[in-house]
Amino acid sequence: MQSLWLENNQLSLQEIPQPAKPGEALIRIRKAGICGTDLELVKGYYPYTGIPGHEFVGEVVEAPDSSWLGKRVVGEINVVCGVCEQCRSGRSTHCENRSVLGIINRDGVFTEYTTLPIENLHIVPVSVTDEAAVFTEPLAAALEIQQQVQVHPTDRVLLIGAGRLGQLIAQTLMLTGCDLQVVARHPLQKELLTRRGIRLIDEGDIQHWRYDVVVEATGSPSGFELARKALRPRGTLVLKSTYKGEMIVDFSSIVVDEINIIGSRCGPFEPALRLLEQKEVDPTILVAAEFRLQDGIKAFGEAEKTGMLKVLLTP
Amino acid sequence: MQSLWLENNQLSLQEIPQPAKPGEALIRIRKAGICGTDLELVKGYYPYTGIPGHEFVGEVVEAPDSSWLGKRVVGEINVVCGVCEQCRSGRSTHCENRSVLGIINRDGVFTEYTTLPIENLHIVPVSVTDEAAVFTEPLAAALEIQQQVQVHPTDRVLLIGAGRLGQLIAQTLMLTGCDLQVVARHPLQKELLTRRGIRLIDEGDIQHWRYDVVVEATGSPSGFELARKALRPRGTLVLKSTYKGEMIVDFSSIVVDEINIIGSRCGPFEPALRLLEQKEVDPTILVAAEFRLQDGIKAFGEAEKTGMLKVLLTP
Repeated sequence: MQSLWLENNQLSLQEIPQPAKPGEALIRIRKAGICGTDLELVKGYYPYTGIPGHEFVGEVVEAPDSSWLGKRVVGEINVVCGVCEQCRSGRSTHCENRSVLGIINRDGVFTEYTTLPIENLHIVPVSVTDEAAVFTEPLAAALEIQQQVQVHPTDRVLLIGAGRLGQLIAQTLMLTGCDLQVVARHPLQKELLTRRGIRLIDEGDIQHWRYDVVVEATGSPSGFELARKALRPRGTLVLKSTYKGEMIVDFSSIVVDEINIIGSRCGPFEPALRLLEQKEVDPTILVAAEFRLQDGIKAFGEAEKTGMLKVLLTP
Repeated sequence: MQSLWLENNQLSLQEIPQPAKPGEALIRIRKAGICGTDLELVKGYYPYTGIPGHEFVGEVVEAPDSSWLGKRVVGEINVVCGVCEQCRSGRSTHCENRSVLGIINRDGVFTEYTTLPIENLHIVPVSVTDEAAVFTEPLAAALEIQQQVQVHPTDRVLLIGAGRLGQLIAQTLMLTGCDLQVVARHPLQKELLTRRGIRLIDEGDIQHWRYDVVVEATGSPSGFELARKALRPRGTLVLKSTYKGEMIVDFSSIVVDEINIIGSRCGPFEPALRLLEQKEVDPTILVAAEFRLQDGIKAFGEAEKTGMLKVLLTP
């Protein structure tokens, strides 16, 4: 089958045998999305060899349980052991023996077929289009913030970064009723937010110690610096991005201001699908370009452009 | 009055006029304690000119409200405005206009007399000796951990560092019923913990991803590194020390493990005094040496020695 292949930070188009993992479902990919982590993998964020990609919607074509055949599904990306301390303590996304679709020890979805255990699959409601369903994974990641931090309706919340993930975070934070402001850099990012009634703020207008919660979604040192400035004492700073390399942090100020810093990764799929079905969020406005899988390298080139939103691939 | 004086990182013994601040109580210092922050101030952690020292027990000799005269008191160190956003939001220790006893814009307690607003004072119960009461401020700082983080009886908790503050943290964490282990380096630190039935663990025996909560009380990069190793995914890392300079942190691992890092500073005085009165904690076992105020420079020399516990000063 035709696949994108990543090896030594080089992306190529290759013919790979169709996968067959005993006990797992075989899924035909209908659509896949390119995410910031994919771009970082190509740049060498983490040494990975294999088919990249983890955001997808597909159709089950083979399964250990035949009732799944033909179902349109999305899939959780962490394949877990179920027996390690993390799994047994209800933290299975942190499984000590996990493989991660297109990221760690498991071929991903920029291809024609992939496999996942049935436990990882979620059926997509009929009313949710492929174009929306392909955003389930990043939408779940956005919801992980509310899973970790209680965002109060009275909270002043600042979101720094309005790219692919930032836009979804903005849409989901709006649902909490909090007083949200977003720092966006690019005209299209700003327009998409404004169109949904989400308020923007210029970096230069951000007051010191103003926000109860700050979500840093740029992954950059300057974003972190701005977040620290904006956050009030005893406030919560959510790290919601793929960070490259090491950051220099003034621990003394974290202690003096009693700041809470929390890292945030994969989130819950069911509420993401529910919000898509209820049309409480609309990720499809992020779709910037769609490519055929055979043009995948060109698609990555597009996705890398500054301010570019979601690029989709169709096998 | 005879006072220690800090200027350009130089400590000297000087004759300073007795303070008189309208609206504040005048307090005769009975005993004062040298803390890690005092040592860091001398090393230049923060530019401070004035009388250092913030841990004390004293007697009110003048007060706007005469009912306070003759009372034996301890005092909260943050003198606050009451009107800024932090004060009005119940975070007065983070007052934007605060002065801090012996640390920011306010002469401290390594002297004969100091002043504080009545609101900052707490009466010491009769049964609590001066030698115990002088620990109220650091004991309150230790309790700030439980004020910020819910420590469950089922939690595995690791405390890294068993110096002046670490010993108090160990004693207060023990009260939560948690499964506590402490990394201590010096024989006396170890002995004091063992004597109270607090379990030790060697650095080399610490397992990866083992602890629900880790309290880092060394202020060193190696302590932070050990804390990160020991902490489980979604665990809480409490920064409870005076950190000097900047630290290099791998943000990517904070996100991947969804770690929660929380800075912790000043804590509540009333529960500290209650625990002293109930003899649930015993800070007096930490007293390593007592000096007269006129030997204060020698006392600082002693306090700086590796593994040294609490050095007290008496005017």
